[in-house]
Amino acid sequence: MELESVLDSGCSRDWQSVAPEAVDPLRFAVVGIGWFTRERALPALVESELCEPTVTVSSTTEKAERVAETVDRAERGISYEQFHDGVAADRYDAVYICTPNALHLPYARTAAQYGKAVLCEKPMERDTERSRELIDVCDEQNVPLMIAYRMHTEPAVRRAREIVDAELIGEPVEVYGSMSQRLLDRINPDPDQWRLDEELAGGGALFDIGLYPLNTTRFILGDDPIAVTGRTRSTHDAFDDVDETVSCTIEFPDEVFATCTASHNARQSSTLRITGTEGQVAIEPAFFQDQQRSLHVSRGDGRLSVALEKVDQMLEEFDYFADRVRSDAPILPDGEHGVVDVEAMQAVYRSAERREWITL
Amino acid sequence: MELESVLDSGCSRDWQSVAPEAVDPLRFAVVGIGWFTRERALPALVESELCEPTVTVSSTTEKAERVAETVDRAERGISYEQFHDGVAADRYDAVYICTPNALHLPYARTAAQYGKAVLCEKPMERDTERSRELIDVCDEQNVPLMIAYRMHTEPAVRRAREIVDAELIGEPVEVYGSMSQRLLDRINPDPDQWRLDEELAGGGALFDIGLYPLNTTRFILGDDPIAVTGRTRSTHDAFDDVDETVSCTIEFPDEVFATCTASHNARQSSTLRITGTEGQVAIEPAFFQDQQRSLHVSRGDGRLSVALEKVDQMLEEFDYFADRVRSDAPILPDGEHGVVDVEAMQAVYRSAERREWITL
Repeated sequence: MELESVLDSGCSRDWQSVAPEAVDPLRFAVVGIGWFTRERALPALVESELCEPTVTVSSTTEKAERVAETVDRAERGISYEQFHDGVAADRYDAVYICTPNALHLPYARTAAQYGKAVLCEKPMERDTERSRELIDVCDEQNVPLMIAYRMHTEPAVRRAREIVDAELIGEPVEVYGSMSQRLLDRINPDPDQWRLDEELAGGGALFDIGLYPLNTTRFILGDDPIAVTGRTRSTHDAFDDVDETVSCTIEFPDEVFATCTASHNARQSSTLRITGTEGQVAIEPAFFQDQQRSLHVSRGDGRLSVALEKVDQMLEEFDYFADRVRSDAPILPDGEHGVVDVEAMQAVYRSAERREWITL
Repeated sequence: MELESVLDSGCSRDWQSVAPEAVDPLRFAVVGIGWFTRERALPALVESELCEPTVTVSSTTEKAERVAETVDRAERGISYEQFHDGVAADRYDAVYICTPNALHLPYARTAAQYGKAVLCEKPMERDTERSRELIDVCDEQNVPLMIAYRMHTEPAVRRAREIVDAELIGEPVEVYGSMSQRLLDRINPDPDQWRLDEELAGGGALFDIGLYPLNTTRFILGDDPIAVTGRTRSTHDAFDDVDETVSCTIEFPDEVFATCTASHNARQSSTLRITGTEGQVAIEPAFFQDQQRSLHVSRGDGRLSVALEKVDQMLEEFDYFADRVRSDAPILPDGEHGVVDVEAMQAVYRSAERREWITL
């Protein structure tokens, strides 16, 4: 592999195996219609040639219908209760679950019972036990399950992984990844939002955004954590239940250490850099949507920066999922992949309490 | 303070208090004439209007004389033995100690006995005990002692500190600093060099380069570490005695966590970034000499990058030291400041063994 090919392959869908015209679009029931679903997920499903948003699911039929009416190709809006009762089950082939983390399991269970493919937002559940149960309910009904890690189909991340795989930076030595935002000031000022509720979310900054550097490091290195240590910090009353800021170190095989930091109370910033014996590859900005990404590769005496075309990350993710389901192919960020993050994140919290390293 | 003033003050010597023409130059005996002394320190002393390199000190008189002959303004070359005997003591006012770490103490002791001001390379000694002894020998003779942290007079670092002090990035939340190089491939291939000898160096990558992010973070935050955890890694046989790579997390007051990483076996790279509630300030490249530094400040919706003029860091450092000595003013990176790093670094090694956090 030559570095030029990073530019050449650029944003190509190296994973695509089926042509849109050769298959029926994958029809989605979209469960949970908060801001992210309305502004990011539904527009991508409307845009897609491989998917269709046919059903919206929310707390009341009225609310679901109201959103469905604004969405091209949507046919029905139903309540969560109706969803569990199988209403309109013939109108969709898959569900996209975008609810508070601790509600992923019940919707996944119902979806699996009706034989639907499951695309579940990350983190997959609030704890390891419920995450494993989520895997089980899908396995029992033999339905496909993908955890919605949109960085896996982000071209900058895929190119970074190719660079690491091709040993263009030598052997990885150290990783640093960080993601921060002002949750209360810039995103949602409500101190009662579910992201601040440990029962519903499972954790704070780490569960919500810290898993981006954690999971993307796993994806690029192609390895899973061996041990972790971390510390958390909360300064706002709103964060008395969950971590406002987290800093953790993850040990990967061959003693490669990755430092991941995240904060819900720091200026928006996101970065990922892998330093190797021969070079360094960095993605900056790394994790927020709707940004143009640059890939910086240092090697020898030089540094090459590639500005990649911006893709709609949700469109890439939905299409990848549809491609896998329609071609009956294995899905990479599956349940077993997702549960590793939940385990690691819970271990970080335990290590923060005990002030020690925890082996996974 | 406005951001413009960062550009305006730029590389100005905000610390300078005496005019070169108002004082006698500070005459230096330079102890240890390895590559760094010959290529970095001596040229700066020759260039300086506040300093003069009058005496060189090495293993043999011949070697010292040979170097002295090539240095403008140098008057004598003497052996270490002659130095201890006070030969040519009337030819210098101060000593610059640039020997293996574990030899700093004996030369500082002799210098202090002859009433000379001491500028001692960092880390100040191989362990905390010897570092404290070094402070004592200078205190007893009432001679000035400075530890040679050249980042304290690096304009990019001073401007970053002003930005943090003025709360232009809000409250600091997180710090990341990193420094890496290929020691054996690019700097010195000798597996028997003192930097790889724990007895002489005190430690490996952490002691040699990891203290740059550690100490510069302390300088910019204006705080000292409270607790540390870290892990080390060695893959080369040459590093069987000391750490080849280190990753550590340093707790500062108010639970601000700084991650510092360093490697003697990774591509040359150095960076420092402080993320606050309102913004971020980053220096990149940060720590290697003879590079043009850029200061990147993110705030609100924008990012400002300032490329600062390159300064001769050794010249700034020597002149600062001479300025303090000649004006009888307090010196900031003094012995008490230096010993904090040695303590913290030794605690990182202990924490790596015990796999826990160590409170300082």
